[in-house]
Amino acid sequence: MALYDNLFSQLDVTSSQLLVTDNDFKSPDFRMQLSETVDTLLSLRSIPIFNENDAISTRRAPYETFLLQDSSGIFWDNDSLAALLALELKADLLVLLSDVEGLYSGPPSDPHSKLINTYIKEKHEGLITFGDKSRVGRGGMHAKVKAAVHAADSGTPVIITSGFAADNITKVLHGQRIGTLFHKDSHLWITLTDVGAREMALAARECSRKLQSIPSHERRKILLDIATALEEKESAIKAENDADVSAARKAGYDDSLVSRLLLKPGKIAALAKSIRTIADMKEPIGQILSRTELADGLVLEKTSCPLGVLLIVFESRPDALVQIAALAIRSGNGLLLKGGKEANRSNAILHKIITSVIPDTVGKKLIGIVTSREEIPDLLKLDDVIDLVIPRGSNYLVSQIKNTTKIPVLGHADGICHVYVDKSANMDMARHIVVDAKLDYPAACNAMETLLVHQDLTTSTGFQELLVELKHEGVSLYGGPRASSLFNIAFADSFHHEYNSKACTIEVVDDVQDAIDHIHKHGSGHTECIVTEDQEVAEYFLHQVDSAAVFLNASTRFCDGARFGLGAEVGISTSKIHARGPVGVEGLLTTRWVLRGTGQVVKGDKGVDYTHKKLALD
Amino acid sequence: MALYDNLFSQLDVTSSQLLVTDNDFKSPDFRMQLSETVDTLLSLRSIPIFNENDAISTRRAPYETFLLQDSSGIFWDNDSLAALLALELKADLLVLLSDVEGLYSGPPSDPHSKLINTYIKEKHEGLITFGDKSRVGRGGMHAKVKAAVHAADSGTPVIITSGFAADNITKVLHGQRIGTLFHKDSHLWITLTDVGAREMALAARECSRKLQSIPSHERRKILLDIATALEEKESAIKAENDADVSAARKAGYDDSLVSRLLLKPGKIAALAKSIRTIADMKEPIGQILSRTELADGLVLEKTSCPLGVLLIVFESRPDALVQIAALAIRSGNGLLLKGGKEANRSNAILHKIITSVIPDTVGKKLIGIVTSREEIPDLLKLDDVIDLVIPRGSNYLVSQIKNTTKIPVLGHADGICHVYVDKSANMDMARHIVVDAKLDYPAACNAMETLLVHQDLTTSTGFQELLVELKHEGVSLYGGPRASSLFNIAFADSFHHEYNSKACTIEVVDDVQDAIDHIHKHGSGHTECIVTEDQEVAEYFLHQVDSAAVFLNASTRFCDGARFGLGAEVGISTSKIHARGPVGVEGLLTTRWVLRGTGQVVKGDKGVDYTHKKLALD
Repeated sequence: MALYDNLFSQLDVTSSQLLVTDNDFKSPDFRMQLSETVDTLLSLRSIPIFNENDAISTRRAPYETFLLQDSSGIFWDNDSLAALLALELKADLLVLLSDVEGLYSGPPSDPHSKLINTYIKEKHEGLITFGDKSRVGRGGMHAKVKAAVHAADSGTPVIITSGFAADNITKVLHGQRIGTLFHKDSHLWITLTDVGAREMALAARECSRKLQSIPSHERRKILLDIATALEEKESAIKAENDADVSAARKAGYDDSLVSRLLLKPGKIAALAKSIRTIADMKEPIGQILSRTELADGLVLEKTSCPLGVLLIVFESRPDALVQIAALAIRSGNGLLLKGGKEANRSNAILHKIITSVIPDTVGKKLIGIVTSREEIPDLLKLDDVIDLVIPRGSNYLVSQIKNTTKIPVLGHADGICHVYVDKSANMDMARHIVVDAKLDYPAACNAMETLLVHQDLTTSTGFQELLVELKHEGVSLYGGPRASSLFNIAFADSFHHEYNSKACTIEVVDDVQDAIDHIHKHGSGHTECIVTEDQEVAEYFLHQVDSAAVFLNASTRFCDGARFGLGAEVGISTSKIHARGPVGVEGLLTTRWVLRGTGQVVKGDKGVDYTHKKLALD
Repeated sequence: MALYDNLFSQLDVTSSQLLVTDNDFKSPDFRMQLSETVDTLLSLRSIPIFNENDAISTRRAPYETFLLQDSSGIFWDNDSLAALLALELKADLLVLLSDVEGLYSGPPSDPHSKLINTYIKEKHEGLITFGDKSRVGRGGMHAKVKAAVHAADSGTPVIITSGFAADNITKVLHGQRIGTLFHKDSHLWITLTDVGAREMALAARECSRKLQSIPSHERRKILLDIATALEEKESAIKAENDADVSAARKAGYDDSLVSRLLLKPGKIAALAKSIRTIADMKEPIGQILSRTELADGLVLEKTSCPLGVLLIVFESRPDALVQIAALAIRSGNGLLLKGGKEANRSNAILHKIITSVIPDTVGKKLIGIVTSREEIPDLLKLDDVIDLVIPRGSNYLVSQIKNTTKIPVLGHADGICHVYVDKSANMDMARHIVVDAKLDYPAACNAMETLLVHQDLTTSTGFQELLVELKHEGVSLYGGPRASSLFNIAFADSFHHEYNSKACTIEVVDDVQDAIDHIHKHGSGHTECIVTEDQEVAEYFLHQVDSAAVFLNASTRFCDGARFGLGAEVGISTSKIHARGPVGVEGLLTTRWVLRGTGQVVKGDKGVDYTHKKLALD
């Protein structure tokens, strides 16, 4: 009390001690007068400090409101007294100060524990591992939570936060989201089930560690078993897929979605074949990438190993589920799958067939399937368990995921690919390449979106013929400032535009440097092509353009895992970190340094004589 | 008006049209009555809809308040009318609806453009590239901004937001941060200068592209010139460093910080030597990592290339600036440096000396130095220009940066390294390794923090001797539940704890599997060691432990770029993506796919016959 008095007096505020016992609360007169007393004290700028009148108290059980007659408590502390007073005084808010930031999902000292912003009885009761007892006074977090639940249920919201930050009370009063809030209506606010998402991810990680530890031939066998099971269950798969397709048609989805959803005849056989190819790939795990003798008897190896847990978010195509699952198993990774709801039944049966052949030595939870949209935001928060997110779908899906997660994302939001036709170009070749780059599959990410042409070519017969052919094929042409007036075509709103259809932007550039500057300024770093017969200009372009793929005299459509000879492809990355361009199994692996010694120590770098000798990989 | 009427009537609200001209506002009687009219209409639940009385208006210039006599405007639109009305009616807030989310730093269609949350005249005036005119009605973003600035300056805050989201007005009224806010006091809220940060990063990227394009021997020459310049300017560097050191001593910084700050005698010579070593490294840029013939005359290469722009945030040590700058130049990257303010003078002169020898063909802005703490949050937002952040300093610094940026971060927050002494261990070797791992440099990230011991060893003489030696060397021992009672030592609060000092945690485990589980549960994925004579147990541990580095019978202190033979080290990464463990120049590079053809096209995969033949790398 002396300390309170001292500290408050520095703020020119007096304080007054009120010592109470549980007996006082039994008197209706006392209870009636209590509010009056507190109000009067406050109006005199005197802060009431309540405490138990220890000297005369006989109570060894918690305070409770007599109105509720709740006698479940077994504690005996200031937290229960505070809850009782808050209710008696009809307080708008009760703030309980602790030595940690609030209630955590586990021990506060464990970095995996998360602060619970809003306590929801139905969700958190029983799940919580309470921290140590408070180092100050009686009652730890357990007592605080019990008191807080009690007060909140009775109508006074409670916030538990740290008393060590001087401005926490001010922050609470300003409505900042700190500490843990208890409110009687909090169960109505639940939309997410983060506990479920974390458990699923942890289980996939556990199984992936087992998958890595089984022999290579057993991982191969799982893949072969999947291929067989898919072929055996073809008619069941077909039935579920038909149900999805007719539901989508009924719901009025557009034809292109329905066509992506449909598993066409022969698709299951093709999938089984591709899984068998993946099964027969060279074992990617445990490859020794480098081997160095650091010192006598001390050998360092850099080896390949799985990333851990992958989260794949894909739209429509159920065949993507099968391909990705096969790649994940081949590379020893755990997998969480989230497909579009229009493919729910197809995805469910494919998932069931695949996991049915995973042996118990690995565990079926290796591959989890997420069915509710609500779980995605929770999964995207698990940057300590999930190692990579691979979105397969629209640009919008990719951007949205990139913007909402700290987990690395493999993919590209935009594919704005350029073809630059240099003045020395063979114009027949240029026409051939431009038509293929735009028209082979206009909706692909590696299709040409912008055609840059050297200024000397604009009036040439060859380029005029190229324009005529594009128009003849039904391509809508939009021009930048120079091209739109020169060729009398519509004005392009932006150079950073992905049409994904039979349309493209055209602009005139001064020379190869101007083309490179244009690509750097407006491109998306995906794939760019130069058509030229001038070797010097070609090499300048190939060295200067800072994109995932740069091509000389070849269609941008070649930028693809299968065409690049990588086997299957998990996607095309425009990120510079980890994997860039078409990504195969390699992008699902990381490395580990393995050092084998015979007792060597560093000892201020005098412990060994370093040799740093490169050794052969066999 | 009919549309308004129709839509409002669906909400059971009437609306009323008020047609005005600028002449009306010249009448004091009208202005007096205006508020009354509006108040009465609102009390009758009728929404007033103002519009210009086009039929009789003669005005072709913007509306302005007559009070302010501001005649700078040249526009003529509903936005200026709205601003005028807001001021006349003394509105609390004016909301201007647009077809985009608000005001952007560039064309809204350009993904690099950022929404400006708060318009600050001093900062944004003149800088903004306004978007296209609104597709609906007169006046585009330019008119809106002008009207908003005018109203805000006169006292009515304005928010410009999109009218396409149905609930945007509700969000504004709930105080959500959407759209662009204009307020007369907004210039007082400025703490950041994101424009400066972005310009600095873009300039570094521009210069890095030039650095990549000069011949290898010129990049080498820059490094040799830096080494010479540092030696020549040694006394000037020393003088600035002395000034930093004495200021730090005066300010009462602790000895360990002062010792990291001080450039000891011989340090400049050592730095010059290490730069010359880096200069003589094999050229890392443009290395061909794989070469494949995709089809006849179509050859694909995977080549190494720089990441682009690196941001290094480091504390105290000015020598880190020199090392990192040398590595960045060697790898062709641009660099932004932010050092601790206690080393400001040392960093400034080192930066000046280094950039003084960068030729104009590259540009001195290749290496930028950030001096104010305020610029860091702005730099961390530039995920479209900066490719990698490397924090070198305390765990706190690293965690803080990881939590606040979308740019990939290379580094580790925690280094909780384990040594597991297996039951088959040679106990002399175990003692030797444990003492080195803990004591060679207790504050290093690769120092042992937790010692795990097989349960069969707890009473052995060898292990007792090991404990005695640790105590003898002054190591404080903390035990887990089993160890603390067995060895009668203090109880460890958490297994996830990095002491960074002469202290460690000890726990007893059942066997190698229990040790692995403990490491997975409580470790940080940095470096773990097993001491054993049992080859089978050793290989199991080496294959199962999922950390950046796993060692057999060798001190954890070996986990280091120089000791691993990587040359210089930019840091040790515990991330699984991109680079893992000690990272040398390799971690500052990415790859690019280069395809050289002779006119090949894809044509539905019938354009070429794929050969996918691996070619030799020469």
